[in-house]
Amino acid sequence: MTKPLMNRQYVFAARPDEQATAECFGQIETEVPAPQPGEILCRNLWLSVDPYLRLKMHDRESYTPPLQIGEAIPGSSVAQVIATADPAYQEGDLVAIQGGWQEYAIVRAKHAQRVDPALSRPESWLGALGMSGFTAYGGLLSIGQPKAGETVVVSAAAGAVGSLVGQIARQLGCRVVGIAGGPEKCARTVERFGFDACVDYRADDFPVALAAACPDGIDVYFDNVGGPVTDAIANLFNLRARMIVCGLISHYNMPDGYVGPSILRSVLTNRVLIQGMIVFDWHDRWPAGIAQLGKFVKAGKLKYKEDVTEGLENAPSTFIGMLGGRNFGKTLIKIAE
Amino acid sequence: MTKPLMNRQYVFAARPDEQATAECFGQIETEVPAPQPGEILCRNLWLSVDPYLRLKMHDRESYTPPLQIGEAIPGSSVAQVIATADPAYQEGDLVAIQGGWQEYAIVRAKHAQRVDPALSRPESWLGALGMSGFTAYGGLLSIGQPKAGETVVVSAAAGAVGSLVGQIARQLGCRVVGIAGGPEKCARTVERFGFDACVDYRADDFPVALAAACPDGIDVYFDNVGGPVTDAIANLFNLRARMIVCGLISHYNMPDGYVGPSILRSVLTNRVLIQGMIVFDWHDRWPAGIAQLGKFVKAGKLKYKEDVTEGLENAPSTFIGMLGGRNFGKTLIKIAE
Repeated sequence: MTKPLMNRQYVFAARPDEQATAECFGQIETEVPAPQPGEILCRNLWLSVDPYLRLKMHDRESYTPPLQIGEAIPGSSVAQVIATADPAYQEGDLVAIQGGWQEYAIVRAKHAQRVDPALSRPESWLGALGMSGFTAYGGLLSIGQPKAGETVVVSAAAGAVGSLVGQIARQLGCRVVGIAGGPEKCARTVERFGFDACVDYRADDFPVALAAACPDGIDVYFDNVGGPVTDAIANLFNLRARMIVCGLISHYNMPDGYVGPSILRSVLTNRVLIQGMIVFDWHDRWPAGIAQLGKFVKAGKLKYKEDVTEGLENAPSTFIGMLGGRNFGKTLIKIAE
Repeated sequence: MTKPLMNRQYVFAARPDEQATAECFGQIETEVPAPQPGEILCRNLWLSVDPYLRLKMHDRESYTPPLQIGEAIPGSSVAQVIATADPAYQEGDLVAIQGGWQEYAIVRAKHAQRVDPALSRPESWLGALGMSGFTAYGGLLSIGQPKAGETVVVSAAAGAVGSLVGQIARQLGCRVVGIAGGPEKCARTVERFGFDACVDYRADDFPVALAAACPDGIDVYFDNVGGPVTDAIANLFNLRARMIVCGLISHYNMPDGYVGPSILRSVLTNRVLIQGMIVFDWHDRWPAGIAQLGKFVKAGKLKYKEDVTEGLENAPSTFIGMLGGRNFGKTLIKIAE
């Protein structure tokens, strides 16, 4: 009798009061069942660690339902098919799936996306060719509609989405200014990702430095953070500026939300357009977007930084560190070779 | 020798610290010159008193340049041509012009709009068939894009623009909820303008009452006020709600602006679209809009309330009262018969 395959898995153990802590995550071990018809059994290789998970820890509706205690922690992964009950996949195939924080995942084959290792490294499907890439591409083009010569500003510029937003905007002929935390991240954003400038939001003179970096004002702002950074942006909007609200990472650890000066005055006087976005809304445009991003990647036009931690057991501490800004680039966990 | 025609005129006398006061307005008297070629000399009959004037009293750029001390107080008016140096107009014609806070105005004929008294009362060109009407119509349709069955909420619902927004939305088959100050205004908004409901923002239970009046959430919000009213609205937005930022009257007397909870969380989770508007941006669409509004007016579909004060000398106190909410309907000064 074969020894049963066991699956180490993280579940939601406790709702955080303010900061998310290690106590929010509990580890369980369960036996891996066989895939049913139409399903594939996958071994997770790479796990994407994403800020939106923090939003799901609140006990209230958000754009995704709140996590329930005991529920498996969700996340995108790149995985290898190890058993298949669907003719579309064979053992050994690489797939991008909603694999979760665990070693093994069973998913419906039709929900998997094929990974082509000839085009790029497999983990790219969690980044430039995955949710991060399409979030950057779809939000910037659909809402921001940047034109050559305009000034595009993006916050969390060293992060997974932000670094791609800036590079795509540069491809479109825009002046690109990043906002990031600390001089090291700012320097790397300019040197590695080719931003025209990057401003440190932790510096005392941040609003002054931001204004200096945007001498012609701001036409497009891709917001990943909210809070005082966005307040400073609002003072620099040009007439008919566009603001994409993609994330509000500075608000996520505030149970009562952020309180600050209203940005509506600038919205009124400059006729600004603001729109919230969730990449899942655009799934019909996803294939075309990924195809375009694939061309950029093949042509070497998109540099992409991953911040890799080895071992599933380090996922909780990596997630908590990321919320505190202790990451540079797309945060990934390498679960297996 | 004929006695020269003298013009009583208000000029900007002092910048307000916080509240606008009577000291902001100075009265001067000057001789009326003859119109030069291409100009018409008009006698102001009706003067429109508008909240945006308060914004122009700040010493900083807004969507219109700040008023300078000594500058004439601007305002729309309906006037009668009393001398003409342009073949397009004859003495006795009625026109809508930027006539200002004064008895007589000289304007370029091409900047005048002809008033047709057969279609509606002349003062309608300062309201339903003027800036208020087109502000309501253009903002609601261009940005709000309301669909039959949706819930449309408008603040300052008893006011010039708000009362029209609600009636136009009703014509489009929407459920219309107003927000106004005090039970009397609320009752009149429902009875006179046909809103489905109107909620008193001064009541202690305002957020609860607003939620009760919008059992299906809010799809379109036409904002004239900002501040805590808008904060309460943001909690009720439906997925893909639209918010028109037309005015922020609750902010105008705050020199440092309004500070409150960020609405961006709702923008993100509900993918809300927010856009600021100034009616002057749409001047190319103005004639078509006014034509549609004229059809509504002729069919008796748009009720319109004017709050008329007699006498140019009462313009400053009427303006100050309006900023404090002591008006019901479009605020007008009747300067002459």
